[in-house]
Amino acid sequence: MARRSKIYEGKAKDLFAGPEPETLIQYFKDDAACRTPEKTGTINGKGVLNNLISEHLMGLLHEIGIPTHLIRRINMREQLVRQVETIPVRVIVRNISAGSLVSRLGIPEGTLLPRSIVEYCYKSEELGCPVISEEHITAFGWASPQDIDDFLAMALRINDYLGGLFRGIGIKLVDLNLEFGRIYDENGEMRIVLIDEISPDSCRLWDIKDGRKLDLDRFRQDLGGMEEAYQEVARRLGVLPEGGVKELSL
Amino acid sequence: MARRSKIYEGKAKDLFAGPEPETLIQYFKDDAACRTPEKTGTINGKGVLNNLISEHLMGLLHEIGIPTHLIRRINMREQLVRQVETIPVRVIVRNISAGSLVSRLGIPEGTLLPRSIVEYCYKSEELGCPVISEEHITAFGWASPQDIDDFLAMALRINDYLGGLFRGIGIKLVDLNLEFGRIYDENGEMRIVLIDEISPDSCRLWDIKDGRKLDLDRFRQDLGGMEEAYQEVARRLGVLPEGGVKELSL
Repeated sequence: MARRSKIYEGKAKDLFAGPEPETLIQYFKDDAACRTPEKTGTINGKGVLNNLISEHLMGLLHEIGIPTHLIRRINMREQLVRQVETIPVRVIVRNISAGSLVSRLGIPEGTLLPRSIVEYCYKSEELGCPVISEEHITAFGWASPQDIDDFLAMALRINDYLGGLFRGIGIKLVDLNLEFGRIYDENGEMRIVLIDEISPDSCRLWDIKDGRKLDLDRFRQDLGGMEEAYQEVARRLGVLPEGGVKELSL
Repeated sequence: MARRSKIYEGKAKDLFAGPEPETLIQYFKDDAACRTPEKTGTINGKGVLNNLISEHLMGLLHEIGIPTHLIRRINMREQLVRQVETIPVRVIVRNISAGSLVSRLGIPEGTLLPRSIVEYCYKSEELGCPVISEEHITAFGWASPQDIDDFLAMALRINDYLGGLFRGIGIKLVDLNLEFGRIYDENGEMRIVLIDEISPDSCRLWDIKDGRKLDLDRFRQDLGGMEEAYQEVARRLGVLPEGGVKELSL
């Protein structure tokens, strides 16, 4: 790998300057980290699998008209993506109670929500990604009311489509965590695009039959079997490399 | 089967008075019919399979908050459904060009549409279900602007969810044909619900890998293998009865 400038170092991904203007390289790591409980670790092959899973899902979303930052996957750990103006808001869509809905609001885990609930968090790791409302987003200029309308509509479509997709392969989409950014065309016209990744790091995925968790909660909750869970999701989506596990520690 | 009053006789389904007020029994037949070319025939076991497929899909749609007329499946050919005030409009959502989009508008079959396109038809078999616009729907009082907003939003959600679901089992959702009705609660509050069926009679379904048609077009276009196509859809959805074909000619 040629020496190149790292633009951002995240928990699970790094960003490097891309080969052309307004492009970036998104590098998927095996590192895992969570805040509650605070810990870090490694899931062997996770970066490779998330790269393949996210490429696949963003490709399908593109087909139904959801614009994304993905240009193409470059290799087993890297994607070429469009550089965007990041919106510092995480958009979380929840279908079933889990995670902070249990710990913050006392809704028992596994409760089917009366409807899909959308939450926003301020994207600041230092501050622990605090929950925010539309008021905060517009008052602090993180996004305009029109931006919010746009990414909210996209988030609900993504949730419906991926809810169906995962249901087709025997998996419940419990919740998902989305990020968006702005790109501008040559005329200065702005549009909102989906960025980051869609993977078992950013979605909660439960097996329909036995309720087994197939996502980062296996790491958060010390459930073990992390590699197998990520591979199972990739396998059901039809993107597990033929060489299987051995090729994954690239 | 006890003698009971037939309320409606359709091409593929009959409706009978239900056991309780405001219920109906929807009976699925093996009869197949189409207008262009005009012909009728039989697909062995189709009624049983469509009953199971539609029960499954409406159940999943209910889970994501789409209200439907389905109360429960009664047996291999019958469903208990809520009696509704029928809206005489078919709502067709198209993702890929096929059928009348080819014959009426000259869009080559298989063209990925720039976005999902919604069409309305007036539900009149005698008139050949002519294409209509929102102007016709509101001017003739078939549905109010609010009704249209409601069923349009539902139709788009259904298309996203089922598009994902079928993609998960290796099938492209080319288009789908939806019908809606009104129900009233004890306070007279109205809401729009999905009625009729969702099945290979009402959706165009193409295998992702080889493009094989898995829907009523096999009958319309004399492609043969109709029983196998319907069974294949049921099998991938996980609802094919274990006894297979033999039990289907009930």
